[in-house]
Amino acid sequence: MSKTSSLKTNPGNFFEDFRLGQQIRHATPRTVTLGDVALYNGLFGPRFAVQSSDVFAARLGYPRSPLDDFLVFHMVFGKTVPDVSLNAVANLGYADCRFLKAVYPGDTLDAVSEVIGLKENSNKKTGIVYVRSRGFNQNGDAVLDYARWVMARKRDEAAAAPGDLVPALPKSVEPSQLGAACPPVNATAYDTVLSGSPHRFGDYKVGEKIDHVVGITVEDAEHMIATRLYQNTARIHFDHFTESKGRFGKRLIYGGHAISLARALSFNGLGNAFHVAAINGGRHVAPLFAGLTVFAWSEVLATAELPGRNDVGALRLRTVAAKDRPCADFPYKTGEEYDPAVILDLDYWVLMPR
Amino acid sequence: MSKTSSLKTNPGNFFEDFRLGQQIRHATPRTVTLGDVALYNGLFGPRFAVQSSDVFAARLGYPRSPLDDFLVFHMVFGKTVPDVSLNAVANLGYADCRFLKAVYPGDTLDAVSEVIGLKENSNKKTGIVYVRSRGFNQNGDAVLDYARWVMARKRDEAAAAPGDLVPALPKSVEPSQLGAACPPVNATAYDTVLSGSPHRFGDYKVGEKIDHVVGITVEDAEHMIATRLYQNTARIHFDHFTESKGRFGKRLIYGGHAISLARALSFNGLGNAFHVAAINGGRHVAPLFAGLTVFAWSEVLATAELPGRNDVGALRLRTVAAKDRPCADFPYKTGEEYDPAVILDLDYWVLMPR
Amino acid sequence: MSKTSSLKTNPGNFFEDFRLGQQIRHATPRTVTLGDVALYNGLFGPRFAVQSSDVFAARLGYPRSPLDDFLVFHMVFGKTVPDVSLNAVANLGYADCRFLKAVYPGDTLDAVSEVIGLKENSNKKTGIVYVRSRGFNQNGDAVLDYARWVMARKRDEAAAAPGDLVPALPKSVEPSQLGAACPPVNATAYDTVLSGSPHRFGDYKVGEKIDHVVGITVEDAEHMIATRLYQNTARIHFDHFTESKGRFGKRLIYGGHAISLARALSFNGLGNAFHVAAINGGRHVAPLFAGLTVFAWSEVLATAELPGRNDVGALRLRTVAAKDRPCADFPYKTGEEYDPAVILDLDYWVLMPR
Repeated sequence: MSKTSSLKTNPGNFFEDFRLGQQIRHATPRTVTLGDVALYNGLFGPRFAVQSSDVFAARLGYPRSPLDDFLVFHMVFGKTVPDVSLNAVANLGYADCRFLKAVYPGDTLDAVSEVIGLKENSNKKTGIVYVRSRGFNQNGDAVLDYARWVMARKRDEAAAAPGDLVPALPKSVEPSQLGAACPPVNATAYDTVLSGSPHRFGDYKVGEKIDHVVGITVEDAEHMIATRLYQNTARIHFDHFTESKGRFGKRLIYGGHAISLARALSFNGLGNAFHVAAINGGRHVAPLFAGLTVFAWSEVLATAELPGRNDVGALRLRTVAAKDRPCADFPYKTGEEYDPAVILDLDYWVLMPR
Repeated sequence: MSKTSSLKTNPGNFFEDFRLGQQIRHATPRTVTLGDVALYNGLFGPRFAVQSSDVFAARLGYPRSPLDDFLVFHMVFGKTVPDVSLNAVANLGYADCRFLKAVYPGDTLDAVSEVIGLKENSNKKTGIVYVRSRGFNQNGDAVLDYARWVMARKRDEAAAAPGDLVPALPKSVEPSQLGAACPPVNATAYDTVLSGSPHRFGDYKVGEKIDHVVGITVEDAEHMIATRLYQNTARIHFDHFTESKGRFGKRLIYGGHAISLARALSFNGLGNAFHVAAINGGRHVAPLFAGLTVFAWSEVLATAELPGRNDVGALRLRTVAAKDRPCADFPYKTGEEYDPAVILDLDYWVLMPR
Repeated sequence: MSKTSSLKTNPGNFFEDFRLGQQIRHATPRTVTLGDVALYNGLFGPRFAVQSSDVFAARLGYPRSPLDDFLVFHMVFGKTVPDVSLNAVANLGYADCRFLKAVYPGDTLDAVSEVIGLKENSNKKTGIVYVRSRGFNQNGDAVLDYARWVMARKRDEAAAAPGDLVPALPKSVEPSQLGAACPPVNATAYDTVLSGSPHRFGDYKVGEKIDHVVGITVEDAEHMIATRLYQNTARIHFDHFTESKGRFGKRLIYGGHAISLARALSFNGLGNAFHVAAINGGRHVAPLFAGLTVFAWSEVLATAELPGRNDVGALRLRTVAAKDRPCADFPYKTGEEYDPAVILDLDYWVLMPR
């Protein structure tokens, strides 16, 4: 073994490697570019006017089109994988995710995580790791802040639990916490013909459900290109040889891929929801694989004004994505159990012009 | 139903929704970027030097490399889909298409259409809608102008026909109308070694046929990435779940994909045809699906000088694309009937240095 | 035939068309952009910090992130294909490849080759053509210089051999020849947390072997997008219709695709090998096809200081890629014979901070 160097490769962290309060600076800093934006557009097909047109964005008050919020999310998330979830059995959830500053092509992102909770499972083989991850731009401004928890394997079942704390996390982000990444918007300059939808904040009611109608089939080439673009290194997305003998018999698609598809599909019915301001919680209910077609629907869970702002209002949405299952009848849960077609249950806040 | 909002999604227009003279401003304004260009290059592999090299372009008289003309076409076309052809049974044809101004990375495109003809079919279930669509850059300059007609479904068979006019459209664009998007070119600075072909305008004769030799197989990931890049929302290109039970049993490839492939293939034999100045007419003869290989050949239908210009000349070309069928023997028609392998019959003008 | 113009398409050069000392200026000049970089990142997933972050690169002494070295290689290589290897039976090898100047987004590349050797095979049907190819930027600065040899078909078996010389080529590039494309680096500013690996030049020992662990499955859409991006026109990569009846029964993947995958995989264990300075030799041992999963491992063959530089040191590496074969036990050769899973045997120099 003296001539080999498995020691130089990244084995990832196991449950017992984490410590409460531990700060992890992540590799790899990444300058995000117009090239990344084009590839994201080609892979998902979003049509929100603010992110599509520098001219439209500038008319509202942005210096130019910002990056799609989920592209920012995936870029930051990708950095955390080698340190947080390389040995994860499951990505359990997100909470308290806030977009804090708009990101523009040319910005350079890096990320830091803090371990905010640790809870060994009763089987002693795994434990839950809670981290708060933050993305920063080249000026050190936070652009994204979110909590995430994963089930991590232990390297050694006999190892002591490194901590025992389940952190308190909010069920939803308060409206007063929304909007930091959205400059003051000239809502009268917001052209709803160009944006593709006449419906503004005031047109949506709590309880309203919207079928986004269209479905998109996912190909292996697509999700791998996307996931590599984010420098997300989770093996299960890329290695057919190994996964063909594994749990699913095939490559698993990065959960964020379904989020981006659902967001792009949601344009049809939510065309002026130009900014994702926060994610209250998200659950990847079931795995997604290439060859399946993703449909989505949304429900308005709440509406909120933003303290001190009359340019935009916030909708709290639940967007549900399903596989090989059109969503005209809004498939969700029977009792506590999800419809078997559901793959994503995402609770988040979007901003809309008033 | 009171809690649902299918009313917020775009149902598209049906035949009886159109009116003669109706003006439609389309969503979504789109800043085109170097990222879009790279993706287009990766998807189609064009090699025309003007579009490939800023240095080559600048030596000729362009400020920098302009976008591929068909990338501009697809971007403008994509905007018209949600309003014009979401409920189309078939995309019947194009005519009188002129490229009016070069488009550069950083330009923002939007589009407007006017309904110029309406003709109900005798079955009363469908009708033909003729539109003239125009693309504009951020300064309001028209960059593209074309007529297109589609067969649209009626929502209600009992509805009265909304008009009855078949517009007069030219069989071909006049040479005097060509060249607006091509700056004065320093033809002596045009380096035919760098461009990859020694053949200039004067080397092509009417009746000459060119087999472009090479074939390219299309994958589902590729045509979906391209079509989303253009923000073209026609469902039939993306949704395997629905289409597997539909007319073709699979996703149909956007017709423009075959055009871009044929144009890229045509480099081999037409390497100096650096600018598509106009499309006289185009017909998608048969559908194209993933897994098939596209070949192409061209015939010189006419040559023309441009009034007042001695830098460039125009070739009128017919480019025919075929699927799973090499084109060494120029497959086309037997009598009125197309060879079953033919998928595209495109009649257009290109400019070449003299 | 008078009306046809196969004469206008590029038939490529056959063995007897080459002459010793012949200079070939290649089409197509190509401005490389941030879009190309994004697509390359999406297709291969490299994570080297210098190429990922303008900020990281600037801290070291680069004006901004340079292009991935192999992206430069593929772009230059692609230009040589229509003139050098369109009629090649096999791409036999590379040698004496040096990266001479960093390439940045916005640079325009072109290429020239010189025929430096010709050797007819005893069967008189083929011959080996040796060329030295050079890539240049828009200022005429050489950015890349390498020798390559291919087995070319003869058009006419009766044709006389056009020359008879096997050039002397170095087995490896001398350390004094390395580093021209790497500016003086502020190695103390090199942040090994951000770069993702703590291991610097001094931490690697000759004979050390590193399994890069992760595998990546290749899809047809991916390798075709990559190969078209480089404007590489070799038909065998694109045309399933013809290749389904050909030698392999399917499309062959461009050999450079395996190189880029292996380089990206090598990050896991060689995370600070931020620059490929030279390729001593490379062999595509076996063909690669879509659906197969590529794994890789590396061995440190030598270490070297660069004369006059104490910022960086050089590792001479052998990186071996294998298909559908994890590399924990370093598959390579039994005697002279390669393990049947091996597809690539690449001998090259990388630079690392000291």
